[in-house]
Amino acid sequence: MTLTDGRRPGDRAVAADHVSLRRNNLSVVLRHVRESGPKSRARIAADTGLNKATVSSLVAELVERGLLREGPADSTRALGRPGQLVELDGSGVCGIGAEINVDYIAVSALDLAGDTVIERRDPLDVAHLDPSTTLDKVSDLVREAVTAVQERAGQLAGVTLAVPGLVQGDTGDLKLAPNLGWGEVQVIQEMRSRLGEPSYPLHVDNEANLAALAAYSELRKNTPVQDLVLLTGAVGVGGGMVSNGHLLRGGRGYSGEVGHMPVAPPGRTCGCGRTGCWETVVGLSALLHKATDRDDPVRDPSLDVEQRLAGITRRAEAGDARTLTALKEVGTWLGIGGAILVNILNPDVLVLGGYFAVLGPWLKEPLEKAIRDRVIAPDGGGCQVVRSDLGFAAAVRGGAQISLEQVLVDPTVIGRVDSGVAQ
Amino acid sequence: MTLTDGRRPGDRAVAADHVSLRRNNLSVVLRHVRESGPKSRARIAADTGLNKATVSSLVAELVERGLLREGPADSTRALGRPGQLVELDGSGVCGIGAEINVDYIAVSALDLAGDTVIERRDPLDVAHLDPSTTLDKVSDLVREAVTAVQERAGQLAGVTLAVPGLVQGDTGDLKLAPNLGWGEVQVIQEMRSRLGEPSYPLHVDNEANLAALAAYSELRKNTPVQDLVLLTGAVGVGGGMVSNGHLLRGGRGYSGEVGHMPVAPPGRTCGCGRTGCWETVVGLSALLHKATDRDDPVRDPSLDVEQRLAGITRRAEAGDARTLTALKEVGTWLGIGGAILVNILNPDVLVLGGYFAVLGPWLKEPLEKAIRDRVIAPDGGGCQVVRSDLGFAAAVRGGAQISLEQVLVDPTVIGRVDSGVAQ
Repeated sequence: MTLTDGRRPGDRAVAADHVSLRRNNLSVVLRHVRESGPKSRARIAADTGLNKATVSSLVAELVERGLLREGPADSTRALGRPGQLVELDGSGVCGIGAEINVDYIAVSALDLAGDTVIERRDPLDVAHLDPSTTLDKVSDLVREAVTAVQERAGQLAGVTLAVPGLVQGDTGDLKLAPNLGWGEVQVIQEMRSRLGEPSYPLHVDNEANLAALAAYSELRKNTPVQDLVLLTGAVGVGGGMVSNGHLLRGGRGYSGEVGHMPVAPPGRTCGCGRTGCWETVVGLSALLHKATDRDDPVRDPSLDVEQRLAGITRRAEAGDARTLTALKEVGTWLGIGGAILVNILNPDVLVLGGYFAVLGPWLKEPLEKAIRDRVIAPDGGGCQVVRSDLGFAAAVRGGAQISLEQVLVDPTVIGRVDSGVAQ
Repeated sequence: MTLTDGRRPGDRAVAADHVSLRRNNLSVVLRHVRESGPKSRARIAADTGLNKATVSSLVAELVERGLLREGPADSTRALGRPGQLVELDGSGVCGIGAEINVDYIAVSALDLAGDTVIERRDPLDVAHLDPSTTLDKVSDLVREAVTAVQERAGQLAGVTLAVPGLVQGDTGDLKLAPNLGWGEVQVIQEMRSRLGEPSYPLHVDNEANLAALAAYSELRKNTPVQDLVLLTGAVGVGGGMVSNGHLLRGGRGYSGEVGHMPVAPPGRTCGCGRTGCWETVVGLSALLHKATDRDDPVRDPSLDVEQRLAGITRRAEAGDARTLTALKEVGTWLGIGGAILVNILNPDVLVLGGYFAVLGPWLKEPLEKAIRDRVIAPDGGGCQVVRSDLGFAAAVRGGAQISLEQVLVDPTVIGRVDSGVAQ
């Protein structure tokens, strides 16, 4: 699996010298072992087209940097001296993802091998708190994760914070998060000062972008998917899009605002102040509005969102007519907007995230029908609808992964074990 | 300007050896001179980070291959021996683009320097001819362009044919072109057999994709735009999308079917058989339907489309109420769909192509208003609306450019002048 965060200039040729050539080849070998598992040096040479002596030297350097390690003997080898496999180490290198959303904050730390060091989500009624209080609380979560990484004697590659709003690509400033009730906030600066001006890189990104990267990474374990659209279903609805293995960010970083496609009839007012936005008919509030009364506990943002959705699920399973009608209506609207996205982007996979994943068993049928009916390419252009397994952890996982990405692009950012500093 | 056709695997690292390193650096130097004009060897070294001896050797090889040539003395140099500039040659290397559209066929041949060798468009009522006849006629046009290239003693890099329909990415087969009335056609095979199984590469691509590449190339002459959406306005409406310098193709090559976004109220039946498609309210037929009577000569597909549009323009300039009302209505609908695209993709530029460009003076205002009103990012996410200068030649120009792209990626596909074959 190759995460590409879309920030780099793509496949435009860049002049290369022998230092960048070696760095590139270190990256190729590290990614190859990370993506396809333990390998002999001979196998790596065959798979990558590099010669064996070069591979041996590259592997030696990656072992010194704590990114690969010697694995078991190669049992697939029938003749001659048994070869030695090398496998991903990476337990000493971690990335952290954190998230602020409408009714929770969360954090996750992953090591390079994808193992979870810590993961936590706390319900929080962010829309009714001032930004400063929320930033204090999410800083506490990040600090806790940093401590967990340090206790494991790990190097921290960086921290990426997910927010449900417009993040300016070049500065990382939040311009607008309607469902949080936040306007412009210099989130990086606010976080850095709360975290004591830390030495690790700290980035801010849109939560749907990060969730899309996490979903891409999950899917790539089993299938060579290159193009996907992920829909984050929460109070707001966001889209994260990966095309040909690249995250689509748009000119200023504001892509994926699918929740505000003007496709619904003028009706309820959207968090953005307009009417007719897609999220007014498919967001969690729309569902709750249709399926429940005002004082229903599943509307209570101080309860964990998964608990609340479990309540809806129980009613749907019990055949409650009001719940089923609401789900069908939301599913139909989901299909109308979904068909637009599939006509425009022709993804291999449309991934249902957040609450769409939880309630997917009832939403999927009308959605798939709309794609068959309304997408011009035969068979919906081959688009499969799948439910994300990552639930509400998708954005923090994506944040942790993107924090680790720099190590995959340039393994020399991690110091050699013998010296402890990057060489 | 760097065209990237989106077919390549993007910025994923590929193992490199010294042969690929040199090929890459040849490409870097060739693109740099092509994009930014005549340069001294010292300047190229400074701009690319390559050392001077390497640049001299690379330039020598590119000169041998007929891609660069010695230019005038460097007049910017104040001190010391005057340096020699090298400039793009490329007059001996040509690409051809051809197009089949609803009411015309066209061809263009460009050399590597961007100069036009031949360009032609013939009105043809393709929707009322059988595919075989149309393919005969477009093959005649391609043959004529090949002859023009040969008469100039040029090497032909390839031919790319634009069609207004779904082109399967891996095979180049046309799956469906509703407005031509074509179903599945193996266009490459049909063309190759008509052209006598030629030795040059022949590709088929969606016309909006190629028009987007041509527009990208035009815009990049003046501004470092990386993200654009181009709308082709003809009988059908297509979208071509460039994100971070990459053409977006989707998983199977079916992206950009914006004409079939279900945003219009159920009304006129679309060429695809559905109702509610965007092109039923913004396509050329929609405008003609609203602005003219059935027997109006501007509806006659046997006349050149630019002539017909000149008729509409004259009426609008004269203040004809029916024409102006129709244009305003189309412009408003253009804005509704345009705002969806801008919310999803956050382009730097929305380029109006085809008839939208011709009638842009009347369409632009309601379109820009919708973007301001309906796009959630402040100031429409910075999106500018511009009219393409390329008119109905955009797709053939893009086809010629993409045919040349292989030479820019790997200049060694062009033989050295001394031997005449690739080395």
